[in-house]
Amino acid sequence: MKRGIGNHQIGDSFEGFVLIKESTKGTTTNGKPFLTLVLRDATGEIEAKLWDINHEDESVFVQEQIININGEINQFRGKAQMRINTIRLAQPTDGVQVADFIEKAPVEREELMEKLTEAIFEMKNPAMQRIVRAIIKKYQEPLLLYPAAAKNHHEYVSGLAHHIVSMLKIARELCELYPEVNKDLLYAGIILHDIGKLKELSGVVSTSYTLQGKLLGHIPIMVEEIGNTAKDLQIEGEEVLILQHMVLSHHGKAEWGSPTPPLVREAELLHFIDLIDAKMNMLNRALDKVKPGEFTERLFAMDNRSFYKPTFED
Amino acid sequence: MKRGIGNHQIGDSFEGFVLIKESTKGTTTNGKPFLTLVLRDATGEIEAKLWDINHEDESVFVQEQIININGEINQFRGKAQMRINTIRLAQPTDGVQVADFIEKAPVEREELMEKLTEAIFEMKNPAMQRIVRAIIKKYQEPLLLYPAAAKNHHEYVSGLAHHIVSMLKIARELCELYPEVNKDLLYAGIILHDIGKLKELSGVVSTSYTLQGKLLGHIPIMVEEIGNTAKDLQIEGEEVLILQHMVLSHHGKAEWGSPTPPLVREAELLHFIDLIDAKMNMLNRALDKVKPGEFTERLFAMDNRSFYKPTFED
Amino acid sequence: MKRGIGNHQIGDSFEGFVLIKESTKGTTTNGKPFLTLVLRDATGEIEAKLWDINHEDESVFVQEQIININGEINQFRGKAQMRINTIRLAQPTDGVQVADFIEKAPVEREELMEKLTEAIFEMKNPAMQRIVRAIIKKYQEPLLLYPAAAKNHHEYVSGLAHHIVSMLKIARELCELYPEVNKDLLYAGIILHDIGKLKELSGVVSTSYTLQGKLLGHIPIMVEEIGNTAKDLQIEGEEVLILQHMVLSHHGKAEWGSPTPPLVREAELLHFIDLIDAKMNMLNRALDKVKPGEFTERLFAMDNRSFYKPTFED
Amino acid sequence: MKRGIGNHQIGDSFEGFVLIKESTKGTTTNGKPFLTLVLRDATGEIEAKLWDINHEDESVFVQEQIININGEINQFRGKAQMRINTIRLAQPTDGVQVADFIEKAPVEREELMEKLTEAIFEMKNPAMQRIVRAIIKKYQEPLLLYPAAAKNHHEYVSGLAHHIVSMLKIARELCELYPEVNKDLLYAGIILHDIGKLKELSGVVSTSYTLQGKLLGHIPIMVEEIGNTAKDLQIEGEEVLILQHMVLSHHGKAEWGSPTPPLVREAELLHFIDLIDAKMNMLNRALDKVKPGEFTERLFAMDNRSFYKPTFED
Amino acid sequence: MKRGIGNHQIGDSFEGFVLIKESTKGTTTNGKPFLTLVLRDATGEIEAKLWDINHEDESVFVQEQIININGEINQFRGKAQMRINTIRLAQPTDGVQVADFIEKAPVEREELMEKLTEAIFEMKNPAMQRIVRAIIKKYQEPLLLYPAAAKNHHEYVSGLAHHIVSMLKIARELCELYPEVNKDLLYAGIILHDIGKLKELSGVVSTSYTLQGKLLGHIPIMVEEIGNTAKDLQIEGEEVLILQHMVLSHHGKAEWGSPTPPLVREAELLHFIDLIDAKMNMLNRALDKVKPGEFTERLFAMDNRSFYKPTFED
Amino acid sequence: MKRGIGNHQIGDSFEGFVLIKESTKGTTTNGKPFLTLVLRDATGEIEAKLWDINHEDESVFVQEQIININGEINQFRGKAQMRINTIRLAQPTDGVQVADFIEKAPVEREELMEKLTEAIFEMKNPAMQRIVRAIIKKYQEPLLLYPAAAKNHHEYVSGLAHHIVSMLKIARELCELYPEVNKDLLYAGIILHDIGKLKELSGVVSTSYTLQGKLLGHIPIMVEEIGNTAKDLQIEGEEVLILQHMVLSHHGKAEWGSPTPPLVREAELLHFIDLIDAKMNMLNRALDKVKPGEFTERLFAMDNRSFYKPTFED
Repeated sequence: MKRGIGNHQIGDSFEGFVLIKESTKGTTTNGKPFLTLVLRDATGEIEAKLWDINHEDESVFVQEQIININGEINQFRGKAQMRINTIRLAQPTDGVQVADFIEKAPVEREELMEKLTEAIFEMKNPAMQRIVRAIIKKYQEPLLLYPAAAKNHHEYVSGLAHHIVSMLKIARELCELYPEVNKDLLYAGIILHDIGKLKELSGVVSTSYTLQGKLLGHIPIMVEEIGNTAKDLQIEGEEVLILQHMVLSHHGKAEWGSPTPPLVREAELLHFIDLIDAKMNMLNRALDKVKPGEFTERLFAMDNRSFYKPTFED
Repeated sequence: MKRGIGNHQIGDSFEGFVLIKESTKGTTTNGKPFLTLVLRDATGEIEAKLWDINHEDESVFVQEQIININGEINQFRGKAQMRINTIRLAQPTDGVQVADFIEKAPVEREELMEKLTEAIFEMKNPAMQRIVRAIIKKYQEPLLLYPAAAKNHHEYVSGLAHHIVSMLKIARELCELYPEVNKDLLYAGIILHDIGKLKELSGVVSTSYTLQGKLLGHIPIMVEEIGNTAKDLQIEGEEVLILQHMVLSHHGKAEWGSPTPPLVREAELLHFIDLIDAKMNMLNRALDKVKPGEFTERLFAMDNRSFYKPTFED
Repeated sequence: MKRGIGNHQIGDSFEGFVLIKESTKGTTTNGKPFLTLVLRDATGEIEAKLWDINHEDESVFVQEQIININGEINQFRGKAQMRINTIRLAQPTDGVQVADFIEKAPVEREELMEKLTEAIFEMKNPAMQRIVRAIIKKYQEPLLLYPAAAKNHHEYVSGLAHHIVSMLKIARELCELYPEVNKDLLYAGIILHDIGKLKELSGVVSTSYTLQGKLLGHIPIMVEEIGNTAKDLQIEGEEVLILQHMVLSHHGKAEWGSPTPPLVREAELLHFIDLIDAKMNMLNRALDKVKPGEFTERLFAMDNRSFYKPTFED
Repeated sequence: MKRGIGNHQIGDSFEGFVLIKESTKGTTTNGKPFLTLVLRDATGEIEAKLWDINHEDESVFVQEQIININGEINQFRGKAQMRINTIRLAQPTDGVQVADFIEKAPVEREELMEKLTEAIFEMKNPAMQRIVRAIIKKYQEPLLLYPAAAKNHHEYVSGLAHHIVSMLKIARELCELYPEVNKDLLYAGIILHDIGKLKELSGVVSTSYTLQGKLLGHIPIMVEEIGNTAKDLQIEGEEVLILQHMVLSHHGKAEWGSPTPPLVREAELLHFIDLIDAKMNMLNRALDKVKPGEFTERLFAMDNRSFYKPTFED
Repeated sequence: MKRGIGNHQIGDSFEGFVLIKESTKGTTTNGKPFLTLVLRDATGEIEAKLWDINHEDESVFVQEQIININGEINQFRGKAQMRINTIRLAQPTDGVQVADFIEKAPVEREELMEKLTEAIFEMKNPAMQRIVRAIIKKYQEPLLLYPAAAKNHHEYVSGLAHHIVSMLKIARELCELYPEVNKDLLYAGIILHDIGKLKELSGVVSTSYTLQGKLLGHIPIMVEEIGNTAKDLQIEGEEVLILQHMVLSHHGKAEWGSPTPPLVREAELLHFIDLIDAKMNMLNRALDKVKPGEFTERLFAMDNRSFYKPTFED
Repeated sequence: MKRGIGNHQIGDSFEGFVLIKESTKGTTTNGKPFLTLVLRDATGEIEAKLWDINHEDESVFVQEQIININGEINQFRGKAQMRINTIRLAQPTDGVQVADFIEKAPVEREELMEKLTEAIFEMKNPAMQRIVRAIIKKYQEPLLLYPAAAKNHHEYVSGLAHHIVSMLKIARELCELYPEVNKDLLYAGIILHDIGKLKELSGVVSTSYTLQGKLLGHIPIMVEEIGNTAKDLQIEGEEVLILQHMVLSHHGKAEWGSPTPPLVREAELLHFIDLIDAKMNMLNRALDKVKPGEFTERLFAMDNRSFYKPTFED
């Protein structure tokens, strides 16, 4: 385990650089101001209290600043909380930058791009290949940067690309087991299904939903994008409709955000591959934090279950 | 009540012209071929049996033909069924045409168009007005022809336009009661909300779903259309997004086909106006068929309820 | 915007008269007693802390007293909270009274009564008219005083009458659009549907549920009342049953408190008119508090949605 | 097992008197008229076909006539169906009457009345006792005649009284086990809970729902009746409200027709005693028809389950 | 009412012996350590704060220690909380023991065992009797000690045996009312249905779930145990299967933990008897704490309802 | 496409050998007996009518007989139905046997066994390996014969083994993608998860549910079996519990028959692999029957969806 803010124990002291993710002013019952900070580095995050602040503190210790702190970790209402003893802003000479404090995909950006390009290269249906290539080209930069979700799964730098590449690997094997599957269609669906998140989410550092994301959501955004791209490329034919359907139906059910359920074999498969990779990502990261014989914290996005790590895991 | 196939009584004889809506060949238990026809005129429809057919009958009495028949109406498994005694194809000299056998909106096409134009004229926001005008212009012809749904409500010629115009009337009054409401936005939402049905449904006579209708549905189709129209007109700004949201959310809930629920005041209102007009259309037509003191048949699209017509209705 | 406790900003000072809605004694972790007060005026309410109290304070600053305070508004756990610096009971010479601190309907009581009377006057069915008139006469006083609900919508003085009169306006227009609707029945249903709340709710100032309200609810209470009134007036006939059905079914579904769903056209319409007016009341008041480009707080009674106010609203 | 129409086997002949429960005219595919009769006696019912009828047959063999028939029992679409060979109306000299063909409770009417009277006699709370006594006196005649439901459970002559008396027996024992229970209240609730069915259901022979039953249902009808009775007897006090609550809440949940769930101990108990007796009645009668080692037919009102009778029974 | 920690009033002082159920260290906003203790005696439990602790306090006042305290009961966030003034560990000379501070069934252990033995003695089917006897013999000790659940109902010493014996009493009476019921089967089902809890729950004092309890649950554990016992006793035949089915189905529905619903008459009855006794136990204990005219606290396991105790209860 | 009864077209004649799956006697409206047969061969099944039968026919043409027929395929109520013209029992000299008329897995029995053995061989955890090996050894014969379900998916000879082997292939790849997964555990779960079906289902030819299957279901049966096997092999330790949990939770949710949801990583994965392979099996077989551009029949076990086969599938 990397040492960092995400690997704290109650009772530990901590000294080092962290990024301020959120900063809120409060007042104690005695009327004294203090700051509640959410601090993070690449290993996780923690809530911290800075007591007895002055006006300058308030204006200096704000969101997205890097700071050097010294504090101790206590328990407050069942959760870890840091009490900050000393604090200072990072200086240029400290040689630290925002990117150092953000979690990244376990696979390099270049490798992710390579795998993506390879999959597109394998596609034989020219209509699908051209649409996919055009969209990937347009969004290449943010695609390699964005997380796959604001929270829950793949919520780290390059998370979306990492999610796509993992899904492509599963798809490749399922196409071998079930040769009836149309590989081009499945690949295209996997690559495009979540690209709408690049418009739905605000970015990488403190990811939130954009207005367009809240009022439309990534699915309708992407259905429109595919239509536009096909129009621009003067591609007509059932491929366009089926690709739009793949994206539209990939959440599986109306209640989950797909007004039309999967009605094409590859759309059904896309839905399941998406589910498996999202759930395994959540699960693996949660289990990584506990020892054999322990249960994870409750995972909200997995029906609030708490998972067990058997003792025979070494 | 108009006399016609929809106003039959068990035991009646019937003689006249009707349209063949469906025609299916069957075989009796003795191995003899017969035709099961669904016949309709502007007042309704009935199932009919033509026994002892020959090969010519099969090829002649097909879908969308007008025929002159003589038969009697019996009860079969609790439903009315006609036994056809004599049958012949309509001749040009009979002076009948398909349009005569299809139900129409109770308001003339011209009047519907006039009301629509008037509403667009009243709009003050130029972005919304231009988008609505462009789409209505593009779809004017089918809009005045299409039903609002394949079944359940406004399922007659000009049904969609009739539905829109009724909703506009409700909207006008609600804008007076609640002056905070943005009338332009509500009008635009009402006019556009179901235009996607012109691509979702196959047409007027034997309305079914198109492939695009089945795989995407009228809501995503229309969200894309609004985006395209705005792009073509080089309109940018929040109006486009909000109009797309109005259409996207008008079914009210994910389970009912809106992946995003209404999050704008006028979207919420649009949803309710749509519901009221659809339900009143179903209800009025079902109650029109029963006498005071009776219950209607069960209305599937209204939670399978059977409604009562009080005896104090004259 | 009127200035008042409901229009506070974090960081503001406040000085003026307010009503104590609730008063609870607490003890700090140091064992010192303090009061948590909920304060209100006609614009809204706020939680406030009065630190370091003595025994007299406890017995003086109690529910439904008017006080003059001076304090400042801080943020506590994400919500506004006032810290009271000075406090004194209002004196007769201050010229303030409880009614000044309670929100009122935006329409005057007299006007509401007039509209109600007018609607009853329009009714032609003598049985319905007499029942409605008798009930309104019996409950006239509280009807003009009570809110329409303990919270969520029309929760202000005359709220119930305001709700009824708004619904009557919608009904009038719908009767014009759908001439098949029985106007007398719809009017009677609207006027009576929530009168049971006068027994279900405790009153106007700190509205809670009565024992009868908790164990029976306003719907069965009113069904019985209609039966009793008809008996007293020696009215028989289907009108009584249908009016009872209107009230019984107006929540639309068993899950929502109507053991029988609407089975009469006007009952269905009543349900929708009720929904629209309740929702628009909530929505308009929530949107009134935010600026264009902002979202409202989450509205619990509207599926916990947060609504957006477009920037093109001026 | 009693011999009768309810104990038929496929392949049996049948000769004897039966009651016509329903009679519907049909036409064969060859255009020949026939009658579909539902025939019943005290042991059950069967569908029967009378082929090749003439006009007189149609007008003679109608609902609620007793007939003497001779026929054989075949299987048609998986269900038993009788083919009638000879048929004649019963004559006065045959000495048969409608009551002979209707199922009755396994306990005599006099005994049921005696148990009821005994329970009322035991009650000590005068308010409850007087209300219960007045209502039972008013409805004594139909109460001893009516079924407890149109179908599913206790659907036989005196079924309602039988259901009440069984429930009282369970109540007596539970009051012993849980001495905190208010026996008067539980008894009163049991006796009154379903009396509204005497207005909800049309009668004993071909039980259907009355208009009042359909538009209000037995629960609100009975809440009103208790209120009226108390008013007539000039009884005031919490007993009236609690009795109304007992009736109102006895279906347990809003979805099941109780807008208020049980909020008083005895109301909760009433709900469960009602459930147990209804279910055991259904179950015992269904299991009575099968042999050890067999499953019953599917019981719709018990979640469509098919129950097993173990081989180690008798 | 017994005097004890469960019968506190806000404002009371308390002096006496209690058991520490939980002990957690916290830190005030000023950085000072304190202990939050959950204290209990046989009448209930309360949260308490011990301020200004030293290192020794931390290591001494831990779970399952008996202490003598003096404190006062305040209100904190709407709940009672004790502020401890003086505290000391109990001494051997105090003559108190853990068992004194734990709630017990209101029936003596010996009497419970006697009733159980009696019921087994009454059984006539040798297969069932031998299986039940073997299992009861094996588990006799914990059975007379364990609660019936970790919380909600019968959560006291001997709770499980008390629950079984109450259910047997209800069963005896229902067998009289419904003579078709197989008494042996019902008795066997009641006695065995929850024995799996002896493996699912950790014990009596601070009851939690075992790993086996979390991963399998008491139902599958007991199905396996019945199978094993029969195998050991060399009993074959349908009795084994039906007993396993009784246990498997006793929660009534898949959603409630029974993958197979009751499909045997006695299984259906077992489910209802279990429900009634569990609910009456919860309800009686909650109502015992309030005065006539009051409502209980919300009961989570009873759909979060708050029950009313009528004023006519003496 | 293989020629056979499953590849019929309306209007075709058919001549050949088929197996009688079901045989039911009926009576025409004229009182003449006939047989309704369900006929099958390895390609599918069809309903057929044999008119004008005599007593011998009835006793000869019964379930599981092979017959040679000549007939024609008509449409009856929207489904294909064969009218049999000539019929005779197969003779020994015809050289046909029951196994020829039953669908088989597309992979040979030997190959399935080999893959299974290979997977067991790869397992490194001795406890799991021994348990799996013992169970597979015990059930080897039926395992290679049984279908994986009575209908819906893999409902053919060796269907269960085919399902297991396909799942193992998916598992192998996922273990590569997610190296944290415990391969032994996942393999063991896959191999054991449905073995309980060998006791739940009656066999291969006319598969129905056994009494044990109906009253317990394959999941609890298998949990017990694993416990027994471990006991016999004297294996203790967490592996046994976790394997039981894998089987218990593999349906994913209580509503779907798993009283405990997956709480171990490999259990979650097992659930998804099971879902994918079952759905792909259904889907591939349904799509195999339609041409590009067509929709499949509605698939009940896939939420009643009808899937589309794109036209760009060659």
